[in-house]
Amino acid sequence: MTERPPHGSARPGGRTARTRAAVLAAAYEELDRDSFAALTLDRLARRSGVHVSTIRRRWRTVEGVVVDLLAEHSSTLPTPDTGDFRRDLTQLAQAIADFNNALRNRNVIQGLLVGAAHDSRVEEIVRAAFVRRTEEVTLIARQAVERGEIPKGTEAREVIAALAAPLYYRVLVLRGFIDERLVRTSVETTYQAAIAGVFVPEGEGEGEREG
Amino acid sequence: MTERPPHGSARPGGRTARTRAAVLAAAYEELDRDSFAALTLDRLARRSGVHVSTIRRRWRTVEGVVVDLLAEHSSTLPTPDTGDFRRDLTQLAQAIADFNNALRNRNVIQGLLVGAAHDSRVEEIVRAAFVRRTEEVTLIARQAVERGEIPKGTEAREVIAALAAPLYYRVLVLRGFIDERLVRTSVETTYQAAIAGVFVPEGEGEGEREG
Repeated sequence: MTERPPHGSARPGGRTARTRAAVLAAAYEELDRDSFAALTLDRLARRSGVHVSTIRRRWRTVEGVVVDLLAEHSSTLPTPDTGDFRRDLTQLAQAIADFNNALRNRNVIQGLLVGAAHDSRVEEIVRAAFVRRTEEVTLIARQAVERGEIPKGTEAREVIAALAAPLYYRVLVLRGFIDERLVRTSVETTYQAAIAGVFVPEGEGEGEREG
Repeated sequence: MTERPPHGSARPGGRTARTRAAVLAAAYEELDRDSFAALTLDRLARRSGVHVSTIRRRWRTVEGVVVDLLAEHSSTLPTPDTGDFRRDLTQLAQAIADFNNALRNRNVIQGLLVGAAHDSRVEEIVRAAFVRRTEEVTLIARQAVERGEIPKGTEAREVIAALAAPLYYRVLVLRGFIDERLVRTSVETTYQAAIAGVFVPEGEGEGEREG
């Protein structure tokens, strides 16, 4: 235990880690019963047994707690790596679907977007969280390029956004659940576009697009 | 004037129509200066010169006014009909981009989604508004099927959702503006998927998919 512990965790099982676990668990439970709008630092304090001033010192706001919760949960989502581009896309789309179809996660996402609309600080946190997660899973597209499944020069972030967009559009705009059919069409749409070279910016990788 | 006037409009130029125009114009101006969160019935009354009780009687809530505003503006968006599927998709994507890149429209959309997250009545109104607008522009896909540009059995609503999703994902999740590149990749992604038969539900139109 001489290495520097990861940010915000002290050592595993230490008091800081226990506090964090308790508060995040409390937030997760509250969001399973009630919307984000109903969540307050006082409610988190009551359920977690952690003093409200401790919560405020560490996370500042309810949005801060929920962003931490989202980071915790999405970091446990593995990046698919099956050796097959279409299968990787399917696993990722299914993971996003499963996540967003759970009521409390829906509440987390909706709450963060509400917060983002009201507060540019929260907006920046939300943006950064999505950018970070997208960056992680671009591995899928980068490996597909390496295996020669999709053209060189493919913009990996565009591939991931194309896959995720229809799923979030269903949840946030059409206000529905993500069904099997939508997972399939999102995967196929992204796959067909990627192999057709849609995500290769103009002026890059022409050789591959012709070939 | 013996016919029943259309809902909520009395006769053009009549007092009801003038009231509606004044309140919607006031909402549009307010949303160009401030976020949806700052909008109140009192502010609308002050700016429009319409009594707050009249506004409340007619629209009930701020969300009601803004949904009406959204309906008004999106009904002025024509459905592209150029005779060419890809060109129609491009015009529609560009119209969605122009709409969402205007600050006040962003505020309208964000405000409605905030309202939807808080209130299931608003959620239903937002859902219905997007479903109605989607239904209108499905003409693009239906005509492309008729012209033989995309396979028979193509689910027109899926085509429109595929086109719109990346644009709203950029605005609502990635919190950015819709640039030219995103318009182009959304069009091409939808186009490639549509001609590949991705939007034909299983068990339908196989003959055409083979051909």
